[in-house]
Amino acid sequence: MDLCTPALIVDLDKVRRNAEGMLERFHKLGVQLRPHMKTHKTLECADIMTGGSRRCIVVSTLAEASFYADNGYDDILYAYPLPFDKVERCAELSERLSLFHVLVDNRLALQELKKRPLKQGKVWKVWMKLDCDNGRAGVPHYDPDALQLAQEISDTSGVELTGIYAHCGNTYACQGEEQIKAVAQETTMITLQFMEKLKASGIHGTKSSIGSTPSCSHPVPDMAMLSEVHPGNYIFYDVQQSLIGSCRLEDVAVRVLARVIGHYPHRNQLLVDCGWAALSHDGGGRLPTGYAIIEGHPELKLLSMTQEHGRVEPISGKLDFKQFPLGSLLTLMPYHACASAMMHPVYFVHSKGKIKDTWKPTRGW
Amino acid sequence: MDLCTPALIVDLDKVRRNAEGMLERFHKLGVQLRPHMKTHKTLECADIMTGGSRRCIVVSTLAEASFYADNGYDDILYAYPLPFDKVERCAELSERLSLFHVLVDNRLALQELKKRPLKQGKVWKVWMKLDCDNGRAGVPHYDPDALQLAQEISDTSGVELTGIYAHCGNTYACQGEEQIKAVAQETTMITLQFMEKLKASGIHGTKSSIGSTPSCSHPVPDMAMLSEVHPGNYIFYDVQQSLIGSCRLEDVAVRVLARVIGHYPHRNQLLVDCGWAALSHDGGGRLPTGYAIIEGHPELKLLSMTQEHGRVEPISGKLDFKQFPLGSLLTLMPYHACASAMMHPVYFVHSKGKIKDTWKPTRGW
Repeated sequence: MDLCTPALIVDLDKVRRNAEGMLERFHKLGVQLRPHMKTHKTLECADIMTGGSRRCIVVSTLAEASFYADNGYDDILYAYPLPFDKVERCAELSERLSLFHVLVDNRLALQELKKRPLKQGKVWKVWMKLDCDNGRAGVPHYDPDALQLAQEISDTSGVELTGIYAHCGNTYACQGEEQIKAVAQETTMITLQFMEKLKASGIHGTKSSIGSTPSCSHPVPDMAMLSEVHPGNYIFYDVQQSLIGSCRLEDVAVRVLARVIGHYPHRNQLLVDCGWAALSHDGGGRLPTGYAIIEGHPELKLLSMTQEHGRVEPISGKLDFKQFPLGSLLTLMPYHACASAMMHPVYFVHSKGKIKDTWKPTRGW
Repeated sequence: MDLCTPALIVDLDKVRRNAEGMLERFHKLGVQLRPHMKTHKTLECADIMTGGSRRCIVVSTLAEASFYADNGYDDILYAYPLPFDKVERCAELSERLSLFHVLVDNRLALQELKKRPLKQGKVWKVWMKLDCDNGRAGVPHYDPDALQLAQEISDTSGVELTGIYAHCGNTYACQGEEQIKAVAQETTMITLQFMEKLKASGIHGTKSSIGSTPSCSHPVPDMAMLSEVHPGNYIFYDVQQSLIGSCRLEDVAVRVLARVIGHYPHRNQLLVDCGWAALSHDGGGRLPTGYAIIEGHPELKLLSMTQEHGRVEPISGKLDFKQFPLGSLLTLMPYHACASAMMHPVYFVHSKGKIKDTWKPTRGW
């Protein structure tokens, strides 16, 4: 591949395999896959993740929502605690699309929705976020207020309680399939118990959705009782996911291609043209190999980065500079694919060693 | 300010003050300021930094070089160890502009330039990078090869040794003006001694340039003997620079505006709509207040971030949630302005509490 570096390269065959694996997994379980777009934010990849349906996606920003809506996508869930500055934009999307969903975890957000009734006889499609011990957004599942808020949403005219949404981000602390499955089971049970409470309170037809790449890569049988799942990172996977146990390293579909730009034998280092502007500092050097894995070179460490420079040295011993001529390429497997992808205005998509396409992500909020 | 959040906001008056301060400082010393564009990558800010001349700038990527060249800028120094994949693009810029400079720190790069002689009777304008104990790019100043490479550049037809370039990035390890000045003095002396060696070898008329925001914020008198300086971050400054001692906190011209999107009393935390996608993980939580300083709230800590969420909690004690209603704004002063700016496709530029302009940076390589 004859690309200017640094470049984010995406292996189309691996992307397709990761997408098909996830679609198949949940097709078998009879659960709707609603893939998350936040990792890549491109149209082409969304197409692959939805199996061409262009329906039933999750987004993390309204910029993504608008981008997909403008390009023929529908049934979009904006899975983010409703920000009060964006109610009008959410209303417009709700009026324009067949299905646009918002997420709420507090009473004031519900008030904001009430203040802006939808036109054309439409109702707000609201998912309530339940915190199943992940500790980010959501009403804690053990809080009596969770059921009460769900009831208020359900009782509010112009608003529909469409679903209960939980993110099992606590799977990111797992190591190995067994631990992942334990969290997946726990989140599933908490969510399903909450669904039972809803029914007992006379609220029927509400959907349930949980998700995270680790749990959806290793679903437990009880997840078949959920309506939906919403993983995202699995489309690329990354070194972090391989350490968690979500995937094998060979499933990772994304690399940052870098070039050797300097030899510094006096300090046993070489420089590559990949700094944090191309890889990100996210994940923070948690690997023995530093900020990334350098493919084919487990003996090397990406020690540190500035904006456009990366310092590479051997984990031990003397660097054989002849192996890494100036101008030669190194292939970095990112610790966190979402963060590395975010740094690139274009992704180079290849199959069998040839560039097939370029994908341009949307940015902003 | 009624902006959708998260938003990068730039205080135009502070930017102007920082720019004028730097211009004046080096005008007085009789040294040419060649400001670095990497922090902001916008046309408007380049205009301010060059005092309207649109000449004499440094860039960190060829994307920046082309962006500025396409928009009427000239005398552009691409201060990056010549990447062999970009020689042709550099040649085109050299042929097109009055002055386009490249940087070299090894013999093979010189060979690459020789292989592509410039048309129209032009010569390659080459700066040799000297490593004055910063330990990133450059030939080590104590290495006899430094003088030898300079001579070879000078002796090569079609190539001109335009200058000697040193980056005193080691000022980033300083605390306080005294330490900064010691590094500035050291880098200046090493560079000037090298210039003497050049002259002793019969090489005359070569320029010298050193730079970093800390050293150029507190120049030492001997810097008057340099031809140029090339700081960049000073246009925004940031918390890191204030800790190094380059500036006061009140000089920091950039903020990320965030909004409270969740109250979680059971864990004494609130959520804001600023994750690493809006602030970056660069700098890595080195502050007692976490990943940023929350303006007006020294009692708060930005504890952790995921892509679009930030967890905020008090450094100690109970959070008074009434002080931070849902929907209210928090203003984050970034640890590293270059890294935070990089995450935003648009900057909102304000003066005296009113949005005056939006600036759009260039991206990519």
